[in-house]
Amino acid sequence: MRAVDVIVRKRGGAELSREEIAFIVSGYVDGSLPEYQVSAWLMAVFFRGMTPRETADLTELMLHSGKVMNLAGLRDQNGRVGPFVDKHSTGGVGDKVSLILAPIVAACGVKVPMMSGRALGHTGGTLDKLESIPGYHTGLSEAEFRDFIAADGFAMTGQTAEIVPADKKLYALRDVTGTVESIPLITASILSKKVAEGSEALVFDVKCGPGAFMKSIEDAEALARSLVNTGTAMGKRIVGVITDMSEPLGAMVGNFFEIEESLDCLEGKGSADLMEVTMRLCAWMLVAGGIAKTVEEGLAACQAALASGKPRELFLANIARQGGDVQRFLALKGKYRSKYGRKLAAKDSGYITGIDAYKIGVAGVFLGVGRDKTTDPVYPDVGFIFRHKVGDWVKKGEVVAEVYGKDERSLEDSRELIESSLSIGPAKAAARPLIVKEITAL
Amino acid sequence: MRAVDVIVRKRGGAELSREEIAFIVSGYVDGSLPEYQVSAWLMAVFFRGMTPRETADLTELMLHSGKVMNLAGLRDQNGRVGPFVDKHSTGGVGDKVSLILAPIVAACGVKVPMMSGRALGHTGGTLDKLESIPGYHTGLSEAEFRDFIAADGFAMTGQTAEIVPADKKLYALRDVTGTVESIPLITASILSKKVAEGSEALVFDVKCGPGAFMKSIEDAEALARSLVNTGTAMGKRIVGVITDMSEPLGAMVGNFFEIEESLDCLEGKGSADLMEVTMRLCAWMLVAGGIAKTVEEGLAACQAALASGKPRELFLANIARQGGDVQRFLALKGKYRSKYGRKLAAKDSGYITGIDAYKIGVAGVFLGVGRDKTTDPVYPDVGFIFRHKVGDWVKKGEVVAEVYGKDERSLEDSRELIESSLSIGPAKAAARPLIVKEITAL
Repeated sequence: MRAVDVIVRKRGGAELSREEIAFIVSGYVDGSLPEYQVSAWLMAVFFRGMTPRETADLTELMLHSGKVMNLAGLRDQNGRVGPFVDKHSTGGVGDKVSLILAPIVAACGVKVPMMSGRALGHTGGTLDKLESIPGYHTGLSEAEFRDFIAADGFAMTGQTAEIVPADKKLYALRDVTGTVESIPLITASILSKKVAEGSEALVFDVKCGPGAFMKSIEDAEALARSLVNTGTAMGKRIVGVITDMSEPLGAMVGNFFEIEESLDCLEGKGSADLMEVTMRLCAWMLVAGGIAKTVEEGLAACQAALASGKPRELFLANIARQGGDVQRFLALKGKYRSKYGRKLAAKDSGYITGIDAYKIGVAGVFLGVGRDKTTDPVYPDVGFIFRHKVGDWVKKGEVVAEVYGKDERSLEDSRELIESSLSIGPAKAAARPLIVKEITAL
Repeated sequence: MRAVDVIVRKRGGAELSREEIAFIVSGYVDGSLPEYQVSAWLMAVFFRGMTPRETADLTELMLHSGKVMNLAGLRDQNGRVGPFVDKHSTGGVGDKVSLILAPIVAACGVKVPMMSGRALGHTGGTLDKLESIPGYHTGLSEAEFRDFIAADGFAMTGQTAEIVPADKKLYALRDVTGTVESIPLITASILSKKVAEGSEALVFDVKCGPGAFMKSIEDAEALARSLVNTGTAMGKRIVGVITDMSEPLGAMVGNFFEIEESLDCLEGKGSADLMEVTMRLCAWMLVAGGIAKTVEEGLAACQAALASGKPRELFLANIARQGGDVQRFLALKGKYRSKYGRKLAAKDSGYITGIDAYKIGVAGVFLGVGRDKTTDPVYPDVGFIFRHKVGDWVKKGEVVAEVYGKDERSLEDSRELIESSLSIGPAKAAARPLIVKEITAL
């Protein structure tokens, strides 16, 4: 087999065999194939796409390029095994859903083997948020990961180098060759990593809107369908939920800020938008895990769990389990704010018609919430605290949000962007549905 | 400027600025840009194409990556300067047109600075043919090239490493990344090299059919138009002639065989198809060079020149000038045949309806006419001598062609392919026009 022939076949729109895809992927991972052939192939895939069969083959080949967790025999304190279900979000601004969702579904009996990522670009990262808790560490060993899931029903870790090494290499190449935005390549990248965690069922939160990777509903739906179809073809139970990412999710954006807000949510004080998205995803996890028959039944179970206070306990138990100082966390809550702060005031009286999630996300990079390069530091005590959300009526000069930055300059550098993210108008905009579409093969 | 942004813009179908194209091409040539970004960009260009302005920019940037010949002051024995006109063929089987055409137009006053290539794949190479003449050398110095043009009106050389180094690098990358078949990339590759020779006008013979690089008339026309438009935008006078390449051109295919046949043509004994194509291209060279006003006037001048015997003299003068042994060449003519020969006989009585140029070309690689890899040797005394052409009536068992190979095995290995190249039917097929289309901006 010659790489150039495989490239030319894909270039012409042919469906590649599993052997041909393996020739490219394995050849790249083992270094026998030069990067320039892989990048040309990636660009051909960008233009020609992949069939569901090709995408499933690519995903499986990537999956088996590294270690695949086997949680099958893992029993909890009651001797129960599974169900192992995870949720993955394509990334948003103020998206702390994982932090709230894991203890809720764990309280309902789902086991969540959660491997998360870090902030990059305008979207936040669960690991960075968790590490803002003094002492909390996310680099769990496999034994810790298993033990903690058995103990609390969930554990939070990063992806080790052993998980899908093919994705690390391929993603790095896609990033510099303009081949990131390809539905089958995104599908294989996401799905291979999530299946490698050991989950038997997966719920995907495909964000859509200006603050998301997928800007249009059409693109988000294409990705959701691809994830559902490919994951189903691989024998997993998959749900794709398309959710709106126009406005930052919830009341806070930041690392420690979002941990704080997560606890608020678990105490019944969460903002409506954030709780709607979280509970819906929780309910689907119960359905995917076979604990609830319908999403309504799942919702009821999650609401009951939330009301019981059990998720809050599990949240704090996990913090302690992963080395976090719970007392210090509770003491810092509401006070851990950078000294470089300013207020965002309404320039007019009227209804808030928009808070641009993308602009807030990019401003967050300036402030120190996120990062541009993987080597940039992030800060715990910076970000946004919104006192108002879209649809609220505000008076001219009224504070809409508190803004905290890593230094004075970061506040200045982000000022224009933040001012321009806020739109105020005379009429209340029609409410945008948060749950845009649900796609399932269940 | 970041390479990935340029790639993404081209991927999206944007027209790149000259600066952006220069960033890619110069960055690749000077080694500052990695090959994997260049190959992704090439694949994006394959899918999105280039505007005439982009193609002209790419051609000029490639042209100026190396030495550009300046023939402007070069005077012949009569003190005349130019016109400098060259012809380029996209490659065919039995295509020895350059060898016949150069002395004919030189006899009419055109100066031909001809830089040619070698056989690769199923198509032959002018340099390999010339080097089958004992003593003939094609690696001329710049001074020799100029002097020989001044003396005989034409000279035959290979492209030095100094001519368009960007093309050598880019072509090598395109070859292994499935990005060869792109009209703008082909245009820039061909045109940059031809303009670098110092020609002020160019006639392109774009071959079309099974034996050509461009199989369909549509593709051939697209390339011809792109060459004409881009070359015109660069201030050159350009003619594109699309000619048929279904049947091998003329009566012989081989290295020395085609030199022999060229001399036959210059002695008035050329086969009709070969002479029709050659004279038409000659006539257009006279028009492009400003020596004839119309192609009919050009044809008349070329016919008169041919009848005068002057082109034959120039042909032999050039052989002597470039180190060839004219006496030995004339002595070998008609006798320089490999001892490994066989005959291709008609399996039925009837009209020859096809001699597949592609199959003959590929069989020629087995026999030793051409090569698969640039490092393979080629042989002077092998190939095909056709006694019949398409349209002839043959009797069952009658010899259609003599076949000569480098060894016994090559005759066996090519046997099936050669047998299958010949089609015989009860009815004479309608004659295929040789000159398919002519495109000019003159």
